[in-house]
Amino acid sequence: MQWYFVAALLTILTSSQGILTTLSQSDRGYKYDYATVPFLAEVFKLLVSSFLLLRECKSSPLPRMTTEWKSVRLYPIPSIIYLIHNNVQFLTLTYVDTSTYQIMGNLKIVTTGILFRLFLKRKMSNLQWMAIVLLAVGTTTSQVKGCDQASCDSLFSAPIQGYMLGILSACLSALAGVCTEFLMKKNNDSLYWQNVQLYMFGAIFNMAWFILDDFKHELEQGPWWQRLFNGYSFTTWMVVLNLGSTGLLVSWLMKYADNIVKVYSTSMAMLLTMALSVYLFDFKPTLQLFLGITICMMSLHMYFAPASMLLDLPSTVKVAPEKLAEVSVDRTTDS
Amino acid sequence: MQWYFVAALLTILTSSQGILTTLSQSDRGYKYDYATVPFLAEVFKLLVSSFLLLRECKSSPLPRMTTEWKSVRLYPIPSIIYLIHNNVQFLTLTYVDTSTYQIMGNLKIVTTGILFRLFLKRKMSNLQWMAIVLLAVGTTTSQVKGCDQASCDSLFSAPIQGYMLGILSACLSALAGVCTEFLMKKNNDSLYWQNVQLYMFGAIFNMAWFILDDFKHELEQGPWWQRLFNGYSFTTWMVVLNLGSTGLLVSWLMKYADNIVKVYSTSMAMLLTMALSVYLFDFKPTLQLFLGITICMMSLHMYFAPASMLLDLPSTVKVAPEKLAEVSVDRTTDS
Repeated sequence: MQWYFVAALLTILTSSQGILTTLSQSDRGYKYDYATVPFLAEVFKLLVSSFLLLRECKSSPLPRMTTEWKSVRLYPIPSIIYLIHNNVQFLTLTYVDTSTYQIMGNLKIVTTGILFRLFLKRKMSNLQWMAIVLLAVGTTTSQVKGCDQASCDSLFSAPIQGYMLGILSACLSALAGVCTEFLMKKNNDSLYWQNVQLYMFGAIFNMAWFILDDFKHELEQGPWWQRLFNGYSFTTWMVVLNLGSTGLLVSWLMKYADNIVKVYSTSMAMLLTMALSVYLFDFKPTLQLFLGITICMMSLHMYFAPASMLLDLPSTVKVAPEKLAEVSVDRTTDS
Repeated sequence: MQWYFVAALLTILTSSQGILTTLSQSDRGYKYDYATVPFLAEVFKLLVSSFLLLRECKSSPLPRMTTEWKSVRLYPIPSIIYLIHNNVQFLTLTYVDTSTYQIMGNLKIVTTGILFRLFLKRKMSNLQWMAIVLLAVGTTTSQVKGCDQASCDSLFSAPIQGYMLGILSACLSALAGVCTEFLMKKNNDSLYWQNVQLYMFGAIFNMAWFILDDFKHELEQGPWWQRLFNGYSFTTWMVVLNLGSTGLLVSWLMKYADNIVKVYSTSMAMLLTMALSVYLFDFKPTLQLFLGITICMMSLHMYFAPASMLLDLPSTVKVAPEKLAEVSVDRTTDS
């Protein structure tokens, strides 16, 4: 399967996620407990991956599976980072308003680029760095709000802690992505086996969070498993399936493509959602959205187009084609 | 002299122009007739160029001057196009509001690129085309206004004639620029001799316009020469000198660099003015301005940086350095 096909699918599904979530709301917000959705999505991903792993185990050659504790113990790391990230996000929102928070979210595009370079040692050309900055600028542009004096002020006048936490949040988000890519690529293990490990820990951490929450609120709303399917409609189940599927696609991209491909997919999805909202929910099209889409398209082309397409190089010049998937073959950790 | 030095100077002077013009206003608008400023600037440019031409004539070798009518008759063309352009601008403003008008003004960046390619047959790489579109997107982004519902609506709901005239205006502006570049480069004539011809016709057309205006208003405000220095302050004279100087720099760039360099200079000047206004006139800094500046800086780098700086090309590849000034040597039209 080609990585750009998976990336396009991820864009479509991530974009549907926003629209399905909006559709799943009734007039007065959610009828169901939204926190249950990511948990069920983890379970869905775990079931799908387990099923596919079992099927692989029945065929030959057998899938490669590293079962040493030295390897398995690394798989909770992304879940732990996401857990910290969620709490930092929550804390950030006590300092800044949602609009400023949304704008700062675009920083994770740039931090992903930086950590991708630092930790995974992947080289990018100057032009590709510029493309990444432009992607962040483009998504930000599309979100620029009707800036009457009040809302503009709020953007630049939050307490300094708000901005620091926003930057920390962007770094944590990027770190989780980079860690996942490192795990997926560190050996030639079966993708499904790697997934089973990732999602197993994901589900456990989610569950632990529910239990902790129950204790904090002293079971006011009953134990977590009673809230699990409360108020679920057909659309809510679609939201769960959709979120689970995007997770599986991201995992595939982390192994066979990279974090930057994922960042482009999800950024494009955000713009697609905004463009579709104009039709579906009668949103007003803004000049900012149009400008943002143009900038991101340019950025996409700058990052991925071959040099010969961008510059008029003499025909004798052949720039070595970049390899997206660089799965190292580390046969010493064979199971 | 290096073209980028002249371009930087043009940026600074164009930017001062906006600030000086604002300073020259008293509490209730202009005390002087603003239409007299471009006329006096033409006269200033004519005087400076004549003086420099005379000095050149006293030295040896004598400056190259084509005095045939076949050549001289081409020099009024830019002035005529500007005259039509000004009237189209005026007409456009009867269909669209000033905010929409300002946004549409950025189209001239793209039309300049297109006419530059079509009429002057200058080749640009894909990346350079993208840079030009990004420059227009960047300047537009910086101008995105506080978009409460009303002002957003106006942007997309002007009559179709408004948009058509906006496009026509952008084409005329680009055409005038491209024509001037063609004139300046069509032979190796002395720059000052070419300037004298350009500004002579410029001054004449300006004067003709005043006389026509006087007739239309039946001399209500007295003949034009009486209005000429009315209410002029020191700052007003600075505005005239500044406008004249930018004209001379543009003319130099048209001969030794090109239209794209000029477009970058003036676009950067617009952003510089906006950034300086934050300090000088206590304007609120907006996120849009910051995004716009980032986009335009990227665009500048994309357009002018050598390929080896943008892409990690193998060290053996040498892309032929581009020549900005391609003054053709056409010795058959010697004077």
